[in-house]
Amino acid sequence: MQLRCVPARRLLVTLSLIGTCAQATALMPMPAVMSPGDGKLIIDASFSVRVDGYSNPQLVNAVAQFTARVSRQTGIPIAGGERATLTIDCRSAAPEYPTLGEDESYQLDVTPSAAHLSAPTVTGALRGLQTFSQLIAPGATSFVVPAIHIEDRPRFPWRGLMLDVSRHWMPLAVVMRNIDAMAAVKLNVFHWHLSDDQGFRVESKLYPKLHQLGSDGNFYTRAEIHEVIEYARNRGIRVVPEFDIPGHTTSWFVGYPELASARGAYRIERNWGIFEPTLDVSREETYTFLDGLLGEMAALFPDPYFHIGGDEVLDREWRENTAIQAFCAKNGLKSSLELHAYFNRRVQQILKKHGKKMIGWDEVLAPGLTNDVVIQSWRGQKSLAEAAGKGYRGILSFGYYLNKMQTAAFHYQVDPLGAEAKELNTQQAALILGGEACMWSEYVTTETVDSRLWPRTAVIAERLWSPANVTDPDSMYRRLESVTRWLDWFGVEHRTDYARLLDRLAGETPAPALRVLADAVEALGIDYRQDARHYNSTVPMNRFADAARPESESVRNLKAAISRLIGDPAQHRSEIDAIRIVFAEWAENRHLLDPCLQSKFLLLEVAPVSESLSKTGAIGLEALQYLESGKRAPADWVAEQKQELDKMEQPKAEVVLAAVRPVRALLDGISQPNIHTAAGSGDK
Amino acid sequence: MQLRCVPARRLLVTLSLIGTCAQATALMPMPAVMSPGDGKLIIDASFSVRVDGYSNPQLVNAVAQFTARVSRQTGIPIAGGERATLTIDCRSAAPEYPTLGEDESYQLDVTPSAAHLSAPTVTGALRGLQTFSQLIAPGATSFVVPAIHIEDRPRFPWRGLMLDVSRHWMPLAVVMRNIDAMAAVKLNVFHWHLSDDQGFRVESKLYPKLHQLGSDGNFYTRAEIHEVIEYARNRGIRVVPEFDIPGHTTSWFVGYPELASARGAYRIERNWGIFEPTLDVSREETYTFLDGLLGEMAALFPDPYFHIGGDEVLDREWRENTAIQAFCAKNGLKSSLELHAYFNRRVQQILKKHGKKMIGWDEVLAPGLTNDVVIQSWRGQKSLAEAAGKGYRGILSFGYYLNKMQTAAFHYQVDPLGAEAKELNTQQAALILGGEACMWSEYVTTETVDSRLWPRTAVIAERLWSPANVTDPDSMYRRLESVTRWLDWFGVEHRTDYARLLDRLAGETPAPALRVLADAVEALGIDYRQDARHYNSTVPMNRFADAARPESESVRNLKAAISRLIGDPAQHRSEIDAIRIVFAEWAENRHLLDPCLQSKFLLLEVAPVSESLSKTGAIGLEALQYLESGKRAPADWVAEQKQELDKMEQPKAEVVLAAVRPVRALLDGISQPNIHTAAGSGDK
Repeated sequence: MQLRCVPARRLLVTLSLIGTCAQATALMPMPAVMSPGDGKLIIDASFSVRVDGYSNPQLVNAVAQFTARVSRQTGIPIAGGERATLTIDCRSAAPEYPTLGEDESYQLDVTPSAAHLSAPTVTGALRGLQTFSQLIAPGATSFVVPAIHIEDRPRFPWRGLMLDVSRHWMPLAVVMRNIDAMAAVKLNVFHWHLSDDQGFRVESKLYPKLHQLGSDGNFYTRAEIHEVIEYARNRGIRVVPEFDIPGHTTSWFVGYPELASARGAYRIERNWGIFEPTLDVSREETYTFLDGLLGEMAALFPDPYFHIGGDEVLDREWRENTAIQAFCAKNGLKSSLELHAYFNRRVQQILKKHGKKMIGWDEVLAPGLTNDVVIQSWRGQKSLAEAAGKGYRGILSFGYYLNKMQTAAFHYQVDPLGAEAKELNTQQAALILGGEACMWSEYVTTETVDSRLWPRTAVIAERLWSPANVTDPDSMYRRLESVTRWLDWFGVEHRTDYARLLDRLAGETPAPALRVLADAVEALGIDYRQDARHYNSTVPMNRFADAARPESESVRNLKAAISRLIGDPAQHRSEIDAIRIVFAEWAENRHLLDPCLQSKFLLLEVAPVSESLSKTGAIGLEALQYLESGKRAPADWVAEQKQELDKMEQPKAEVVLAAVRPVRALLDGISQPNIHTAAGSGDK
Repeated sequence: MQLRCVPARRLLVTLSLIGTCAQATALMPMPAVMSPGDGKLIIDASFSVRVDGYSNPQLVNAVAQFTARVSRQTGIPIAGGERATLTIDCRSAAPEYPTLGEDESYQLDVTPSAAHLSAPTVTGALRGLQTFSQLIAPGATSFVVPAIHIEDRPRFPWRGLMLDVSRHWMPLAVVMRNIDAMAAVKLNVFHWHLSDDQGFRVESKLYPKLHQLGSDGNFYTRAEIHEVIEYARNRGIRVVPEFDIPGHTTSWFVGYPELASARGAYRIERNWGIFEPTLDVSREETYTFLDGLLGEMAALFPDPYFHIGGDEVLDREWRENTAIQAFCAKNGLKSSLELHAYFNRRVQQILKKHGKKMIGWDEVLAPGLTNDVVIQSWRGQKSLAEAAGKGYRGILSFGYYLNKMQTAAFHYQVDPLGAEAKELNTQQAALILGGEACMWSEYVTTETVDSRLWPRTAVIAERLWSPANVTDPDSMYRRLESVTRWLDWFGVEHRTDYARLLDRLAGETPAPALRVLADAVEALGIDYRQDARHYNSTVPMNRFADAARPESESVRNLKAAISRLIGDPAQHRSEIDAIRIVFAEWAENRHLLDPCLQSKFLLLEVAPVSESLSKTGAIGLEALQYLESGKRAPADWVAEQKQELDKMEQPKAEVVLAAVRPVRALLDGISQPNIHTAAGSGDK
């Protein structure tokens, strides 16, 4: 086959430049109101910030962080000048800790001579500082911020990220760097899933056997909890702890088996799934224990909201325990659901006593709860709409489960006020407080969690912050490429771990061919992996699927290029060379990679994926020839190739071959009856 | 031009696979004695270490670190099994702190059933653990360590790295991660250059104005110093502090101008160079001060050796100070050299009083010093040989200056017992204790220092540890590629910063074309940069030259491929395609990159380099055609191209275009009278 040579990187450049250059400001989340001005403000070593109006320790800290980050982003040691580059004008104190519903608005005005950030509260100023730092870019003579006028405020007051630190332990450093990245995209709630069957992760003074026997030694000390809360406070982020009860409590029973509904002994759960150990909610001693523990934790965590989980309660232990059944009979509780509701009412009272409002997953909502409870829905907007109809507030997590490894575009189109919630009236809609991205940790570890969190969480952050009509996925993806790189400055390792994880798989030889393959696949989420093999908390997460990304940026760009080409081949003929070289690279890759796969145990499973990639590349090359010749591809040939692509799209090695998608799009294009022709471009 | 297509990455794969696969164990430093056995030891979740024989807190700590690193390297959560995978057998205690000349030997025996590490001391065991972890690789069914017998010991007892934290401040995290990497390659002395004209970097209780006024707030507290010493101790690394006197002391005089030989006031020096402010060595008060300060620091740093710098003393202030001249006359000191020698004798006495042995740069060596002084030579082996002739011990740093940005191969061939030191007799040669890599920090910052330190320091570590006859640069480079990746697990950022720094330069658009250029150049060192523009401590180090690497791995591999091709074109014709695609990529790159350069101020200077790369690629493509045709290239054409290459090899933008080298080699090849032909390979 005769192929003209265009270096492979050209494709990436060509494809990513399109559109991006036109994007003056790659802000995410997009501000509520934004209008560009003329000229640019210079950012150099004389950069300095002056605080007018109100200040507090959070603002002082934020300005120091911000200046250090400007220095890091630009590589300029900032000495500060006489004249303030940026003045901050806060009109009032923020509450002692970040608070639900506080005013987070700000206005940012940048002119070529100065920038002015004004905000009703310190928290608003914190948000505005993130916007400012996202605007910094290299200009023609220096780093600059473009002149701009921004008026900004969040659409929803509750914009969270839930991190499960129970199933896989996440050390303090992981928590800290991700709180930094949260602040970057203006999230304001760190929901800390601190206990589950697989681990109780906080030191308890009152009931020390919880962390001593229930955590394998992996827990946060009280000092560390304080440190995280303070760290988050300085970034305008609330910390909402979750202690999941009455189910998901196996780890509690290792130290305190008397709390369980069945007879012990219990061991820390190593498997994934929903398990039967459940609190004995019929014994008064259980409430005494909870009063103590929740009281201790309520004092440790200053936020008024306290998450009690409440999801996935299996009732077999309740049904088989005669004392519990007697209790139900005596109290007129006719079902496990009613017993659970009884429990929730009791817990709500305990929390109220300790000054907290209860939040729980869908399942907690049952008659008898006072309406200051907040429902977090993993089931969908319908649950929230129903709850709102009854006067309960809610936040959405359905559609924001990062462990399902869906695309950014998928998460982007999920709206807390979408679907069934669209029908709510204004008053009811106001009860929908926002949403939370959820990072359940069955299939992530310290070294992979960042790449599952970022950049996709930035897209959810935009959904929750920006106006409802900011929905264009093309704009989102263009800005996301920029944001992904910017997040690097916040210490998250979503980009840097990739090479290291692939190198580990490849062993003593470099891994470029493995990277070509990894770039062309997408890792699968929990729904697939839970059946793929027997995973549990002791199984290494060091496979190809763990290194692979949830979404392939290069395949997405390639698909976009093919769509353009199909739409108007003459106009986009210059891209044909670039597309061809990618197909050629895929077609060849197998020969380079396969010799390595045989001697590396973790790569044996990758061989069929590698074979499929090369076949996909070959199909793509053949399809391109049809396109160039202007001849319509024979229907049976196209059908045959599509069948082949369908087969190759079946998951293998816990990844899906994303590469088939652009090739399928190309086949669709060349099988249309009246395709434009790109003929003539091939022999220039 | 008709070019056949081979994806660009193929070259990298092809070129790096050659040789590497044959390399069973990519150890660096190479052990003294090594013989492979049969089979492999499995490393899985049951991996566990048992300590037999002697133990101490350092060993316990080291085993914990080691197990955590095995877990990190493999991605396997290590639970430990019943049976020890690795047993460690130390036969005696190490001294309280790592000590010059202690026994660091170990023996490692790995069989398919178990590994046994024995060592006379805990320090030896620490070295052996690094070897073991370097041997771990993915095998056909699991991670494995190949069966092997190793007897190992260092050639030199002093194997150091000097880090200058005065000129650019290096926060604790930078120090810590680099101590980890030092331990990885068995270095054993962290020489901490703590004060200079540009900053005094340690908290002093006795003379607090030293750090308060002489550091811009960037200094280590006493607690942090303790932390570093403890961290290093747990890795078998000595910490030798340097307080450079009597020159290089401007930062001292900001707080204590009375110590100076001229009248103040003084400010922290912002420029680079050699400066005149010098201690007034004629006043008794100066010695009182030094007695206090050195006493305080001697107590803080447990190592018996204490570095007093002593280099580059300018004597103008001495000559112009009448009191000092009167002092000289009174004491019969006939020159500034004699005055300096007098000072050194006094300082040596002070140090002796505080239990320390003095170490200093070449210049300190003058009559009257007792022979427990150690000379660190930046001048060369001749200085060391002369000192040894007089009974003084020495270490070599000449040839190990990392800030000169020389190649790994250059540093590799420098031997402390080479050059003039070759002539020493056995007894004299024993006075040469080893050497130190030196990282002066005029042209590095927190974000670039790791890529200047690593991987090149690993090569110096091998020179100082491995037998004198381990000198093959090809073997070194093959192993170095592996070691570079392995060092990633130790937290140094020598690889991860590259993309981030290039992205910063490129701004909102991705930087692949910029990376092609960066991969083809080599950053220049201090000798060039000091004249390139006015640099000082306030000038940002965020240029293309700061992102670029000191040595281009891909250009080196390309040059090697061209040498093979020239040597036997028929045998290596398969590499022609790969070489062509690289040349084509270079030739094209300008068109992709140049539009970006114009709008980015830090990239304007890069345009001529980009142009040169493309021209170099075009010359390479044309030269390849001659090679393929089997026709000898016309002498005048070759001469013309070489002239062009010479011009393009001139530094621009503070980098040198490494890419010209393989093309020049190709021109040399095709201008030989009887070149082999690769004809016929082009039309397959």
